[in-house]
Amino acid sequence: MKVLLIIAVLITAPIFGQSTDEEQLRDIYNIALSKSKSYDWLNYLSNQIGGRLSGSVQAQQAVEFTKTQLDSLGLDRVWLQPVMVPKWVRGTPEYAYVETAPGMTNTVPICALGGSVGTPIGGLKANVIEVKGIEGLKELGRERISGKIVFFNEPMDPKFINTFEAYSGSVDQRHSGAMEAAKYGAVGVIVRSMNLRSDDYPHTGSMSYGDLPESERIPAAAISTKGANLLSTTLTLNPQTKLYFRQNCKQMEDVESFNVIGEIKGTTYPDEIMVVGGHLDSWDLGDGAQDDGAGCVQSMDVLRLLKLSGYRPKHTLRVVLFMNEENGLRGGKAYAEEANKNNEKHIFALESDAGGFTPRGFSFECSDAKFEQMQKWSDLFAPYLIHLFIKGHSGADIGPLKNDDIVMAGLLPDSQRYFDYHHAENDIFENVNKRELELGAATMASLVYLFDKYGGTVSNK
Amino acid sequence: MKVLLIIAVLITAPIFGQSTDEEQLRDIYNIALSKSKSYDWLNYLSNQIGGRLSGSVQAQQAVEFTKTQLDSLGLDRVWLQPVMVPKWVRGTPEYAYVETAPGMTNTVPICALGGSVGTPIGGLKANVIEVKGIEGLKELGRERISGKIVFFNEPMDPKFINTFEAYSGSVDQRHSGAMEAAKYGAVGVIVRSMNLRSDDYPHTGSMSYGDLPESERIPAAAISTKGANLLSTTLTLNPQTKLYFRQNCKQMEDVESFNVIGEIKGTTYPDEIMVVGGHLDSWDLGDGAQDDGAGCVQSMDVLRLLKLSGYRPKHTLRVVLFMNEENGLRGGKAYAEEANKNNEKHIFALESDAGGFTPRGFSFECSDAKFEQMQKWSDLFAPYLIHLFIKGHSGADIGPLKNDDIVMAGLLPDSQRYFDYHHAENDIFENVNKRELELGAATMASLVYLFDKYGGTVSNK
Repeated sequence: MKVLLIIAVLITAPIFGQSTDEEQLRDIYNIALSKSKSYDWLNYLSNQIGGRLSGSVQAQQAVEFTKTQLDSLGLDRVWLQPVMVPKWVRGTPEYAYVETAPGMTNTVPICALGGSVGTPIGGLKANVIEVKGIEGLKELGRERISGKIVFFNEPMDPKFINTFEAYSGSVDQRHSGAMEAAKYGAVGVIVRSMNLRSDDYPHTGSMSYGDLPESERIPAAAISTKGANLLSTTLTLNPQTKLYFRQNCKQMEDVESFNVIGEIKGTTYPDEIMVVGGHLDSWDLGDGAQDDGAGCVQSMDVLRLLKLSGYRPKHTLRVVLFMNEENGLRGGKAYAEEANKNNEKHIFALESDAGGFTPRGFSFECSDAKFEQMQKWSDLFAPYLIHLFIKGHSGADIGPLKNDDIVMAGLLPDSQRYFDYHHAENDIFENVNKRELELGAATMASLVYLFDKYGGTVSNK
Repeated sequence: MKVLLIIAVLITAPIFGQSTDEEQLRDIYNIALSKSKSYDWLNYLSNQIGGRLSGSVQAQQAVEFTKTQLDSLGLDRVWLQPVMVPKWVRGTPEYAYVETAPGMTNTVPICALGGSVGTPIGGLKANVIEVKGIEGLKELGRERISGKIVFFNEPMDPKFINTFEAYSGSVDQRHSGAMEAAKYGAVGVIVRSMNLRSDDYPHTGSMSYGDLPESERIPAAAISTKGANLLSTTLTLNPQTKLYFRQNCKQMEDVESFNVIGEIKGTTYPDEIMVVGGHLDSWDLGDGAQDDGAGCVQSMDVLRLLKLSGYRPKHTLRVVLFMNEENGLRGGKAYAEEANKNNEKHIFALESDAGGFTPRGFSFECSDAKFEQMQKWSDLFAPYLIHLFIKGHSGADIGPLKNDDIVMAGLLPDSQRYFDYHHAENDIFENVNKRELELGAATMASLVYLFDKYGGTVSNK
């Protein structure tokens, strides 16, 4: 791209005769892009603390760090909300190889799925049977599955534009693969990583045994996409190929942890509460920078950006950093229970949990009337290239707050790169772009501002 | 982001009862996302060939490689169009240090600007005077500038949402800084890199001495943003700080090179030509993966995607890989001259030269009537999250084709990360995301399809 390119795109240039709302949004974005704190906070969370698995030392460090940072913002109140969380530990690094004949082996990158049991101490070696998805089990039947390792190899479909749809379409094999395969007598499960790229990173993530008794639970691991391709090709050439894998992860007793909460008291309606949040826990392989360090620091910055812009909300505004989204959702449930117990009225909740990429818009869960009102604000967002106002899933942590009156929203960042990093070793600070992260924070703060100012005026019914 | 997220965003799901156009676009995107060639081509251009400065061996290799690839696509005609290009060579690696006192030095990362003269053989050491932009020179005057190295340190403004606007606002110091500073008796010029991040990469780019006689030309180099911050702080502490730099770049005689052209003959209007293109040359520090390897492979893929989707254009469709955009625009000029000489009628030209990031839309140069027609196609693009249909700059290489009748367009990818890599050592294949690249190619092919089918029906007048 050449030197003297003068793009005549005037949509982002200052316009005179602006409305108050236009000016307020411009202020928010200006502050976010030139005086943001979110990137520094994320640097600390990622590089000084690292992966924050529920119940880990790092998760506790993250609680303390974010509380200290919120304390420094001059909010009206900052506190920790206790919550008991599951504690699952990975143990020593997992190891696996593909064996085509005794002594003919190829190491493949794997990682235990969160919640899985370990293998026997010496590891597990067995023949492998490949299936495309859970529905493939029934077709094969117990005879062909029993005693084998089931290899779930359904790739994410690259043809979806929104990569979360591709994820939704394939993730059941990770979530329920072990539970279902065990019913057919499988001895272990290997799942293709939820990743649209071809690379060497295994991607962990939660799985469930449902109500399977402990004695019937079989170990489950994810294999990198390149490893999955190797295993699949090898099986085609030699169906007698065996796989060996070893992991000594285990589930411990629940431990105490915390949601971290900061609050600005509303000037006019202090008893009506708006929440912005992300989840503070993460998986342990990388640093949880995109999932969901980004959402946490953006949410913290929402309060800071509004303060710096001189805006004081009419309703009470809370940032909530939820604990244990990844393997239990205990923080989200505890927050809603506590709110319920205290008869708190929540009118709005916004979650950022889809990565710190260029924001494209919001996905709303609310009545049609409320949704129509918010769609009318889209012109105000156009200069910031925010164009998606759709109905859909908002966020897992805020989910338990759902009722007939609340407006819930999820930030929708560009989704193309999300699953390159999701739950894997490469979910690190270096893979978050500063400007993209900051634009997300500004976009969230702008919606909070508009909802605070106008959102209460339309009935949800 | 959690396991069982089911996003109720149905906008990208298949819809029954689709129109032909909806089906055609869906086909194009499906093929691009599942059977693309663009990423493989870019891998070769970046990792087997590398930076492709006009007149270099690599530029010639790129001509041969892309011609061979186009030959393999079964087009109606593939040819090379000769063009004489400037040949500037960087020479041995540049070197610079900041000296606060004899023996007290700090090395800083610099690179010569494209087109600059070298320093004297032993390098150049002088006091430094910092100015914010070219307008700062007048204020200081000859007395304070003469004999010194002028340090242009105006940063790109982070508050613009479209980073190209920030670039346009600051790039004159790189382009004309040496020419203007020389008039005040400066002995050299150091320019802050056109980069919104704080890092160690100096960013090159073209500059001009205008009609300054050779004897008055002074050497100009870019310094990394972190280097610029160091130099500026040091100057504040000690205004007597000197800078040493050495570079032995030079301008050679023009050499012959080529535009690479491939063509599918139109079935109905073979004499009306549509062009898609990017530029094959790049700077030499990185591999030119984003600028503009991405635009080249996307343009090549447009023809391939249309062929694979079974669509045969009514008008003649050409891919043109232009040579020498970066430091001369000779390829673009030669192509337009030749078209003019042959009385060719060009009705449409689309350039991709803003990186292989997630596409957001198009910027059009054409009559209002044509623009209104094309805006009506935006609904067809909505499922692919393409939302920007604006008037503005299209592309440098296609610029010389401009007349009252042609419709010119530029692909608008997300701009947030572009200047992280632009003209620097880190513009490499690894920094291009496969899906983002492929979505750009599909978006271009879709516009070409729609223009071919409907674009001729509205008068430009």
